[in-house]
This record gives sequence, C-alpha cells and structure tokens, in this order.
Amino acid sequence: MRVLATLDGNVVDHRSPLFRADDLGVLRGDGIFETILVVSRQPRELGPHLDRLERSARLMQLPLPERASWERGAQAVIDAWPWDEHPEMGLKLVCTRGIDEGDGTPSAFAMGQEVGAETRRKRDEGVQVVTLDRGVSTDLMDRAPWLLLSAKTLSYAVNMAALREAESRGADDVIFTSSESTVLEGPTSTVVLAQGRKLLTTPPSSGILQGTTQGALFRAAEQAGWSTEVVDFPTSALFESDGVWLASSIRRITRVHDIDGTAIKVDEALNDEIVGLYESNY
Amino acid sequence: MRVLATLDGNVVDHRSPLFRADDLGVLRGDGIFETILVVSRQPRELGPHLDRLERSARLMQLPLPERASWERGAQAVIDAWPWDEHPEMGLKLVCTRGIDEGDGTPSAFAMGQEVGAETRRKRDEGVQVVTLDRGVSTDLMDRAPWLLLSAKTLSYAVNMAALREAESRGADDVIFTSSESTVLEGPTSTVVLAQGRKLLTTPPSSGILQGTTQGALFRAAEQAGWSTEVVDFPTSALFESDGVWLASSIRRITRVHDIDGTAIKVDEALNDEIVGLYESNY
Repeated sequence: MRVLATLDGNVVDHRSPLFRADDLGVLRGDGIFETILVVSRQPRELGPHLDRLERSARLMQLPLPERASWERGAQAVIDAWPWDEHPEMGLKLVCTRGIDEGDGTPSAFAMGQEVGAETRRKRDEGVQVVTLDRGVSTDLMDRAPWLLLSAKTLSYAVNMAALREAESRGADDVIFTSSESTVLEGPTSTVVLAQGRKLLTTPPSSGILQGTTQGALFRAAEQAGWSTEVVDFPTSALFESDGVWLASSIRRITRVHDIDGTAIKVDEALNDEIVGLYESNY
Repeated sequence: MRVLATLDGNVVDHRSPLFRADDLGVLRGDGIFETILVVSRQPRELGPHLDRLERSARLMQLPLPERASWERGAQAVIDAWPWDEHPEMGLKLVCTRGIDEGDGTPSAFAMGQEVGAETRRKRDEGVQVVTLDRGVSTDLMDRAPWLLLSAKTLSYAVNMAALREAESRGADDVIFTSSESTVLEGPTSTVVLAQGRKLLTTPPSSGILQGTTQGALFRAAEQAGWSTEVVDFPTSALFESDGVWLASSIRRITRVHDIDGTAIKVDEALNDEIVGLYESNY
C-alpha cells in the first residue's frame, strides 16, 4: 500500500513516474529525506523531523520548500490513507536538488508506505546485530563538513550495503563503529544503552544523525526520573550494559538480543518499561 | 541538449518523468552509473566503462541488465544525437535497484548530454584545486567492503558537497586525501603525477575508483616508452612533481595549476605531450 502526494497537496498515482532521468536525486543521490511514523492519523515527532530536514538542507546547501508545503503534502497523504485497513503508516518526505543544470527548483514529494510484517516482527521479537567499522573518526564531523556526516541525504548506498552484509552473516541489523572503536549508530537507527537507571546514546557531534525517536524516549525518561547521558562509549559497553536498543521512527524502540553472535543481557521487564516510556509521549 | 533512451533501444522524451517516487535510486541513491565520452559517434573506453559498471554491480549485489542491452541503449542515443551541432557528448549509463519491495527488476537508462562551456574551459585552461580530507584510511577497502569504496554508486552527495566546498574557497575542484595524508582521487576524477619520464597514480586497492581515462593515458604512455607506477604517494608529492593532472572521461586530461592556493609547476610542453598521449588512443 502506497499513497503519494506532491507538496501542493495533490494525491497522484504512485505507479506513475514522477522523476526525470536527469533529476539530481536520480543521477547523484543529491537530496535529503525523513521517515515519520504516523499512527491512526497522528504523525509522531513531526516537528523534530521537519527541523532535521531543514538542518540536512542547510548542510547540503539545498533550497528547501517551505515548511507549510511539507505539512500540506503530509496531510494529503494522511487524508488519503486507508486507516481502517492499515492503522500505521511510514511517511517519507523526500527533496532532491531538482533537474541537473535546471532552474534550481527542488523536486519533492510525500509518500505513505505500510509498515511491513518483517518490521513488525523485529519490533516484537528484537534483533540480532553485527558491528561494522564505518572507517571514520569521531572528530571528523566538525573538521570535514563536506562529508555530510550529520545530514540525512538520499545517498544511502553504504547503509544498504551494510544491511546486506548483516544479512549475509545471519543478522538483522548493524551497529556502526568508529576508528576509535566507539559506537556510532545503525544504518537507519540510533543506539541506546541502559545502565542502571541511566540511558546513554552517542553525541551527534561524533558524526551521527540526531535521533528523533531516541530524543522522544530520552524526553519521557527524564520526566520519569531516569538520568540520561549523551556521550561516546566503547563497543565493549554494548556487552556490559543492562540492555541495548535501536531507536528508529518506524521500528520504534527495538531491543537487541545478540551482537556479533554473542547473546547480550535482555530484561523483558526493563524492555517493557523502556518501550512504555517512549509510547507515553503519544 | 539531452537524448534519453531505454535499454530496449527506444529514444524517449527526456523531459517526461521516467522514475517512480518509490524507485530505490530515488529513495536511497541505490544504484550505479558510468559516464562515457563520445566524440563524433565514437565512444571512448566503452569496454573498460562497461567492465567497471559490472564490477560496481557485483560490489552492490545489484542485478545488472546484460551488456548487449547497455550497448543497444548507448547506440540508440548515439544514433539520435545531433553530431553536426554537438561533436562531443557525455553518455551516462544508469542502473538502480528498481522499485522498493518490487519484483527486483532494475531501472536503467542511457542518456547523452552536451559537454558544457565550463567543462571545456577547465579542460583548456586547467584548474585550481583544494585538498580535502575524506576521513578514511587506505587500508579500509579490503577490510570494510560494505563501504563500497571502489564502486561507482549513485550515492554521490559527498562528492557534490566537496565540489561546493572547493567553489566556496574559490577553487574549481578537489583532491581527496586519506587519514594517512596520501592522495586518493578527485570527486569525479583520477589524480596523475609526472616525475621525470614516469607517470604515477594511486592504486584502486587504497579505496578509489579504477580510472578509465587514467588507464587509457597509462597504456599510451607505456607504449611511448614512459614508465608508470601505481602507488600511494603523500600529499606533499603534489607540490614536488613535474605536473599534476585530473583524468576524467568528459574533461579528459586536465592540468592542475594551483593547489590550496599555491601555484604548482606547469610545463606547457609536457602538458601537450601528456594530452597527446591520451588522444593517441583514438
């Protein structure tokens, strides 16, 4: 199930081509995106997602359609979605640099997609992950902004290759590590650890995306009396904590039960509490 | 001027959309490409370009249409191109992983584009470059194949951001350097040095694309009695050589006259000889 809308609010047939061959999104992966969970017509963290879209656009020096037009496109998709049949939707917002050597007008759309059975299975059962070296240092983001480490660009070929590598090793997902053997992020998620009554995650300044789902979890956790820490931590901490989760919009808060073939601590009561904290936002 | 053809050999209007919004080329930069120079109907290095396309597909585990269909698409573009008006053409071959969760059929096209005035100016006058850290080690390619360092993917956002960084510093182009401060490649070119009667370039095993234009130059140079060496060299060698060139299909062999604001040695007779060696292939 897919519903496609342009930013003027028109729903169009998603099976009809929308992009020219010479769009820079096609030719160069030259654009940005966000994926937002919508449950029973309510988008989650829409503001933080649109904020991050704007940040990505600034880092890419990409002209971005105004916020109202994204909201209009998103609403058109939400209004046209068959909620009775599919109570959850993944909403993609995509913006490219437009036609190569064109007039500079970006190409953009909003598209709803159903949440697949495999995604729901991972959410319910948890995941096995492998750690993969991303080959970059945590000090790179500030001194090499052209590497776009904190922009959510359409150039996701490496993220997809990493997921294929995980699959070939019999795992579901990946945790990227830095040259310093610290934990970075997943290809499509933020890593969260629990240590006692403290939640930890990696700082965006180390060259990762600011997590919208992780942000919602930490907000609720702090309100519930947990402490939170945003800090680089070594890969070994994954094996020594009270729990590890991947936070991402569509999969929400997914527990990790196995890393590089080694079972890690999984406390189902703690998992229920963490998932409950995130859900308490909505 | 653009001419677009599908791989069944049909020329289609390049102004009409060809890609669905949910094509993985659009959503994830999940695909590969080649750019080939065609002069007066003759494609240059077509075999090596198609070889590299196949190598990229293997690294990406991407199903690739058979070679004959690429040749058919390319020929359709060549046959439809207005050669009297535009004696040179840049021919793009593009293949994506197709529709997200579709039947696995890749999306592909061949497209001719005119060689712009700015490209011809750089070819004639040479370029100023800046060195930019790509933040990766030369030993990464073998141990982290998921980083796709030697595949020519559509995920080119970082390459484009690097070129914008160069422009913001008043330069035309970029030479990427490794964590070890050795020379890697340009965002869309291979770096070549001359030292006496020897030409040098960086080995693909250090995490760069195998250069088709550099390959053609070295082949001709070896036949003319030059020695060639494929070896890592430090950034400092750029300033101590008899000449530095960027080799790329459309710009051919372009001399560098300034690096990071410092003029480097430019010997016009040597440049003519190097360019002549490359041209002697055709």
